[in-house]
Amino acid sequence: MSAMFEKVTIIGMGLIGSSLARVIRQNGLAGKLVAADYSQDVCAKVKELELADVVTHDIAKSVIGSDLVIIAIPISGIKGVAEEIGPMMAPNAVLSDVSSVKSAVIEAVQPFLPESVDFVPAHPIAGTEHSGPEAGLVDLFQGRWCILTPTANTPIKSVEKVTAFWEACGAMIEIMEPQHHDLVLGITSHLPHLIAYTIVGTADDLEDDIKSEVIKFSASGFRGFTRIAASDPIMWRDVFMNNKDAVLEILQRFNEDLTAMQKAIRRGDEKYLQEYFTRTRAIRREVIEMGPEGYPNPSAMRPVQKDQKES
Amino acid sequence: MSAMFEKVTIIGMGLIGSSLARVIRQNGLAGKLVAADYSQDVCAKVKELELADVVTHDIAKSVIGSDLVIIAIPISGIKGVAEEIGPMMAPNAVLSDVSSVKSAVIEAVQPFLPESVDFVPAHPIAGTEHSGPEAGLVDLFQGRWCILTPTANTPIKSVEKVTAFWEACGAMIEIMEPQHHDLVLGITSHLPHLIAYTIVGTADDLEDDIKSEVIKFSASGFRGFTRIAASDPIMWRDVFMNNKDAVLEILQRFNEDLTAMQKAIRRGDEKYLQEYFTRTRAIRREVIEMGPEGYPNPSAMRPVQKDQKES
Repeated sequence: MSAMFEKVTIIGMGLIGSSLARVIRQNGLAGKLVAADYSQDVCAKVKELELADVVTHDIAKSVIGSDLVIIAIPISGIKGVAEEIGPMMAPNAVLSDVSSVKSAVIEAVQPFLPESVDFVPAHPIAGTEHSGPEAGLVDLFQGRWCILTPTANTPIKSVEKVTAFWEACGAMIEIMEPQHHDLVLGITSHLPHLIAYTIVGTADDLEDDIKSEVIKFSASGFRGFTRIAASDPIMWRDVFMNNKDAVLEILQRFNEDLTAMQKAIRRGDEKYLQEYFTRTRAIRREVIEMGPEGYPNPSAMRPVQKDQKES
Repeated sequence: MSAMFEKVTIIGMGLIGSSLARVIRQNGLAGKLVAADYSQDVCAKVKELELADVVTHDIAKSVIGSDLVIIAIPISGIKGVAEEIGPMMAPNAVLSDVSSVKSAVIEAVQPFLPESVDFVPAHPIAGTEHSGPEAGLVDLFQGRWCILTPTANTPIKSVEKVTAFWEACGAMIEIMEPQHHDLVLGITSHLPHLIAYTIVGTADDLEDDIKSEVIKFSASGFRGFTRIAASDPIMWRDVFMNNKDAVLEILQRFNEDLTAMQKAIRRGDEKYLQEYFTRTRAIRREVIEMGPEGYPNPSAMRPVQKDQKES
């Protein structure tokens, strides 16, 4: 049986890149797997973990002869990588990425690609709060959405190749316009991360004795926020730098709602609070119906188990 | 073997009250268990589930002859209950509650209690987003904190009785000043709930097509917020009505931090974001060291021993 791609290069061996390497090897998706990372330390760790056939920190050379190249680094580095690898890529190769913002990445990558190379931007909705090649999981993408945001110029055959690749990694595919992706993810992912980072920072600024109690009694709600606020700082800095407009727009709406809430509490407007809290309860039901990973659950509506209590 | 209390009355058979009934029966903590609720529907359900020896919607009569009475209803109803049960309570009985706010509850209850009845306010840090007698879990309090906030007038012997009771339910005890409890929980619980309710409401206001996508791709961060925002609307309305000062104070701090964050994004201040996100990651480590339920992890630190706590 021949592999899906003759040679695959992954640039960036963090949580996502190393999870991809693991599932590519397990499922035999590449004839040859090349792992590239600027960091010598990361390369050493990847070798030690035996995650790829070739491990290199020479990004430009790493893509030579590969029919699939996936960039899996924080957004701020992508333009530089595209500039380096563009001239080295094989004719008719497919380039993809895994970034949480799509429009800015397309803008950064397109100018450096030769005519015959197709870019199929991708965003797997998967991750943990951990970073680095040791943090990767072979089943990270299992049952998760992967959103593809091809541009008007992307040939369908390349979209199909990347679709087949992600499906072979266990993911489910959704196709979206890049700008629309950035708006939807701005709401579902970027704003929640921003809020969680902020509230954990607010708690960090408290006097030491209160702070230690906040940590001690964090199970009462705060704990779930700390998990989100432990996500990779560079990756998330880049998300907010590159999805500014959508984030600021949705943050504005959130701020208006929070101000209204604040006013209702100050004035003692019980009716407002009760109606608001009843309305939000309904959304939870719809989310639950979508199943634990955001897709329809065959055994939907089972009672929530105790271990699911923590968000 | 004699039970810890001859007769225990629980007023309010929702998530917390019915969990208490379950663990009281399982561990034989009451010679006789009375379950009281204003709602006929709830009483019928409690009878069907066989959660108590006596089930009644006559609140006043339910406390006659009980040596322990626990109020487990939303805060707005507590004053009325205290007024009803005060004159009916047995001499030397102990009254407790389970509310998430302590100062306001003490103020509501104290005026109605006869001299010989001791009030030991309690707050078990446990719950799920589900409500009602069917939602109760026998092990809901296992390994969880229960904070007691006795006043200067509460005799130690009654604090000890309530401590022994909650420990027999599986909980660990912490003693705090009522006002201090309200501040700490304002940060760890009330603000996170307020933020989660608000953000889910913000999403609910979106146009229908975007909203359905937000639900579909909720696994990217939003999902955890929907769980918190599915908590009981009446209970949480009452929390915000009764812990106004602490909530508005901590909300003010959060708002300042969020405004600074917004400004940093708008200006493209990468350094600010990266430093903030690095700082919040450190808090997560401390929370993790506290173990999965917010208490020291046996494999990291020894759990607090009973005899150490009482010294």
